[in-house]
Amino acid sequence: MQTAIMIIQCRDDKGIVAAVSDFLFRYNGNIIEVDQHIDEEIGDFFMRAEWELESFAIPKGRIFEVFQDEVGTQFSMKCSLEFNHPKPRMAIFVSKLSHCLFDILSRYYSGQFQVEIPLILSNHTDLKRVVKGFGIPFYHLPITKENKQEQEQKQLALLREHNVDFVVLARYMQILSGDFIGNFPNRIINIHHSFLPAFVGAKPYHAAHKRGVKIIGATAHYVTEELDAGPIIEQDVARVRHHNTVEEMVQMGQDVEKVVLSRAIKYHLARKIQVVGNRTIIFN
Amino acid sequence: MQTAIMIIQCRDDKGIVAAVSDFLFRYNGNIIEVDQHIDEEIGDFFMRAEWELESFAIPKGRIFEVFQDEVGTQFSMKCSLEFNHPKPRMAIFVSKLSHCLFDILSRYYSGQFQVEIPLILSNHTDLKRVVKGFGIPFYHLPITKENKQEQEQKQLALLREHNVDFVVLARYMQILSGDFIGNFPNRIINIHHSFLPAFVGAKPYHAAHKRGVKIIGATAHYVTEELDAGPIIEQDVARVRHHNTVEEMVQMGQDVEKVVLSRAIKYHLARKIQVVGNRTIIFN
Amino acid sequence: MQTAIMIIQCRDDKGIVAAVSDFLFRYNGNIIEVDQHIDEEIGDFFMRAEWELESFAIPKGRIFEVFQDEVGTQFSMKCSLEFNHPKPRMAIFVSKLSHCLFDILSRYYSGQFQVEIPLILSNHTDLKRVVKGFGIPFYHLPITKENKQEQEQKQLALLREHNVDFVVLARYMQILSGDFIGNFPNRIINIHHSFLPAFVGAKPYHAAHKRGVKIIGATAHYVTEELDAGPIIEQDVARVRHHNTVEEMVQMGQDVEKVVLSRAIKYHLARKIQVVGNRTIIFN
Amino acid sequence: MQTAIMIIQCRDDKGIVAAVSDFLFRYNGNIIEVDQHIDEEIGDFFMRAEWELESFAIPKGRIFEVFQDEVGTQFSMKCSLEFNHPKPRMAIFVSKLSHCLFDILSRYYSGQFQVEIPLILSNHTDLKRVVKGFGIPFYHLPITKENKQEQEQKQLALLREHNVDFVVLARYMQILSGDFIGNFPNRIINIHHSFLPAFVGAKPYHAAHKRGVKIIGATAHYVTEELDAGPIIEQDVARVRHHNTVEEMVQMGQDVEKVVLSRAIKYHLARKIQVVGNRTIIFN
Repeated sequence: MQTAIMIIQCRDDKGIVAAVSDFLFRYNGNIIEVDQHIDEEIGDFFMRAEWELESFAIPKGRIFEVFQDEVGTQFSMKCSLEFNHPKPRMAIFVSKLSHCLFDILSRYYSGQFQVEIPLILSNHTDLKRVVKGFGIPFYHLPITKENKQEQEQKQLALLREHNVDFVVLARYMQILSGDFIGNFPNRIINIHHSFLPAFVGAKPYHAAHKRGVKIIGATAHYVTEELDAGPIIEQDVARVRHHNTVEEMVQMGQDVEKVVLSRAIKYHLARKIQVVGNRTIIFN
Repeated sequence: MQTAIMIIQCRDDKGIVAAVSDFLFRYNGNIIEVDQHIDEEIGDFFMRAEWELESFAIPKGRIFEVFQDEVGTQFSMKCSLEFNHPKPRMAIFVSKLSHCLFDILSRYYSGQFQVEIPLILSNHTDLKRVVKGFGIPFYHLPITKENKQEQEQKQLALLREHNVDFVVLARYMQILSGDFIGNFPNRIINIHHSFLPAFVGAKPYHAAHKRGVKIIGATAHYVTEELDAGPIIEQDVARVRHHNTVEEMVQMGQDVEKVVLSRAIKYHLARKIQVVGNRTIIFN
Repeated sequence: MQTAIMIIQCRDDKGIVAAVSDFLFRYNGNIIEVDQHIDEEIGDFFMRAEWELESFAIPKGRIFEVFQDEVGTQFSMKCSLEFNHPKPRMAIFVSKLSHCLFDILSRYYSGQFQVEIPLILSNHTDLKRVVKGFGIPFYHLPITKENKQEQEQKQLALLREHNVDFVVLARYMQILSGDFIGNFPNRIINIHHSFLPAFVGAKPYHAAHKRGVKIIGATAHYVTEELDAGPIIEQDVARVRHHNTVEEMVQMGQDVEKVVLSRAIKYHLARKIQVVGNRTIIFN
Repeated sequence: MQTAIMIIQCRDDKGIVAAVSDFLFRYNGNIIEVDQHIDEEIGDFFMRAEWELESFAIPKGRIFEVFQDEVGTQFSMKCSLEFNHPKPRMAIFVSKLSHCLFDILSRYYSGQFQVEIPLILSNHTDLKRVVKGFGIPFYHLPITKENKQEQEQKQLALLREHNVDFVVLARYMQILSGDFIGNFPNRIINIHHSFLPAFVGAKPYHAAHKRGVKIIGATAHYVTEELDAGPIIEQDVARVRHHNTVEEMVQMGQDVEKVVLSRAIKYHLARKIQVVGNRTIIFN
């Protein structure tokens, strides 16, 4: 079933829900899901509506315009309109660690992720063979201090060439430049191996072990220029005990990382995420 | 803030959301929360809307009628209309176990529960002193096989006398008669000390221990005539290990029971529960 | 590091721990881990000891005998002695569903599982290509009502030929005969897609949806002749809501299934499981 | 059943377990529980042994000395010996918030906590009435900037007078002086309303809301001079969503706080906590 998905942000006011639902009703929109949220601190209203395209009376290409004319302008709405078809195109950046990548590929294989994966990029060749088993092109672009900028240009060229919509850093271990990030605003998802904002930076499991915490976590977030500080999409945790070594915490943490990253991808694919300032609304 | 809460059930159709939100808009209703749900199996649409009463253009006593005329009849809706004020009146039935009762009283004391507790009934006197510390009347009605029917009549009389809206069985340990239950359809909440439908009946922790499960649970449900089979409101679990004795499982389980029961009460107080067949919709 | 792992069961008595630890001390055993458990219901004592082999004064092949002479006989112990090297050999049986298999392969690939996987057997060919990407032999043995007994003989022959130590049913969907099971007592691990003993049998997610539970689960257990009734190794759960369809519950459940099965395999590989009656001790 | 509990710390070496278990065996000690832990980073061995006193061949008052002579000195052990009887004496400091206090009182009432509560101290009178319902003396010592030092002296005098063994800060909201803390090293338990080390200091729920985290937590720790930095005993978390206001987060967090604090008290009462540097071993 093909659907249209509209996400709206505007000042909170009476009549918004009525206006939007009347619009959908008048043009014969069969609503699949509607969610609202009012952020009382900033006084803004948010709405996500998803409806069937097939029987909708406005052709796909004119929906945005007609909606703006009849509803959006009146409430000074910021709108985004997307369609669940064709499937979004996702690039995955990996290094040597396999757990997040394999979890993503497993969901891709089973059809749980409605996504195309036109390419996987890595600064190492370790994961090449398994990736081939899934029939996905694998590009090896080794990174050194010297060639980093140059390689980023090649990466960007590959992403453009493959019409990539968004990027997933599946424990990629390299810091992307502000330039690179600027090409994909709120469209690069990273998994950080700690319960942010605790233990930012490198070696979070070592830091967690040293502090003697009883719970470790992982955080999926959109990448922004400030390291580990972008809008959080999803988090989860696992319980550790005094006898767990750093190595065991790393292993236990990997189970959390892969689940958290895959959930974040799922929300992104379903267009259920709205970034507001440095926070996210998850319409779920 | 005083609010009206309407819960709607009807055949799924286009235009329902538009009709309801237009109604609220026309009469100047300031929406606090709207939730929808479509049950695709039975083809029914559900909606819960909560809005401010103060500025609403229809007087409290006429809302139901006007809504029926202008919207409800057209879609053959089953509606319920409630108000968050005055606070609902809850009776608690207890036996000797204190953990659920104290958790409820703690939330009542701190203002987390918007509820009146006009009375607590028990077949034992053990909990009388602490209940008095909270300033709530405590009634002792001992139950034997012989006097059960008679005592139930006294209980019912007390509930009527105190204008009780709903009843919470906080580990009450007695089975209520069909007659009694019939007086409070979907308005008696029980906590069962297992993850239903596993381990129905008495001594669930013993049964769980014998089966060697690794997780125990608790279930809050509305009481129906069939024992332990009413609509489930909330469940949660705790992890147990091989070295945990039945006694330890009882203690660990009590922590789950009290949290699950209190969450169920919270949903009930906020009118967030709709019973459909033997299942519940929790608008949350 | 090569280790010996001894698991002991005997009547609880004073001096057992002293006798075992004195034995290990006298022969220069460097203890890695010792765990005890007393089952007070049946009055039995259990102990799991793991120690380094390298510096141990008794040669590998004589440890069991010397221990029996000096300690075991005195306390009428039932002992099992195993070594962490060479790695155990695990066969995986799959059908069409990939999530559990891929999770296992992911851990095998990253070195999290200390195991050999000499072969994967399936009654379908769907998973063949990806399995090949991991470099593991894949055998296709289609099953019909008519050929089931015959195919089980071929399966057994393959397991013998590859010196398989234990079998994992990674959502295999076929019921094994008592004969087959008898060849691998407490050495066949199955994943059941419900929180046993709730919803035994086929289609547990449908049953869970119908009953309106708020939590679903999965159970890894050793396979015994009675279906879904073998000793439980591990369980876990996920929260569901009223709006989750059976299909969504299936998908959410798969995340639990794969984690639970992989944890059970991890315990089995580390020889941390002792079956007592129909329950398990997990020395963890 | 009266028991002795010994916790041992020494350099890791062969023969320690054998020496300790031989000691217990020779003097007819019936072992209830033994746990070991090796901290491989610092190379230390830890052991907690609990055994029945009744049939033990050494009188209570001489156990420590005999153990030192026969075992402790040889391995340069640091030992602590405690007895589960008489019950430890716990003072509770509260302010206005009731949730943690009521949870503790509930467990005290039901016999889950083996503890005496000789007094409850508060800088406010709000909780006096309910405390009286539990039959526990309540002392009101209001705190201002000016009288803080003086009131601490009164608090200390009360604790001494009532032979208090340890102190629980059940959301006490006041910072204790280094002097006060020095009187109860590793014997003051505080509950911090965040998942430390994230959001140290005041208003952690506000900070968590601002950062847009998806999970909030609570941390029970021993109080040291450095604020919010003492050894962590227990932590737990709850999931929050974008629509949860700070006020809702506070309420959801209170459920975590009370459970975490009560678990920490339970470990402390059972002498299951060993502090090592700034971390804790929980023998559980």
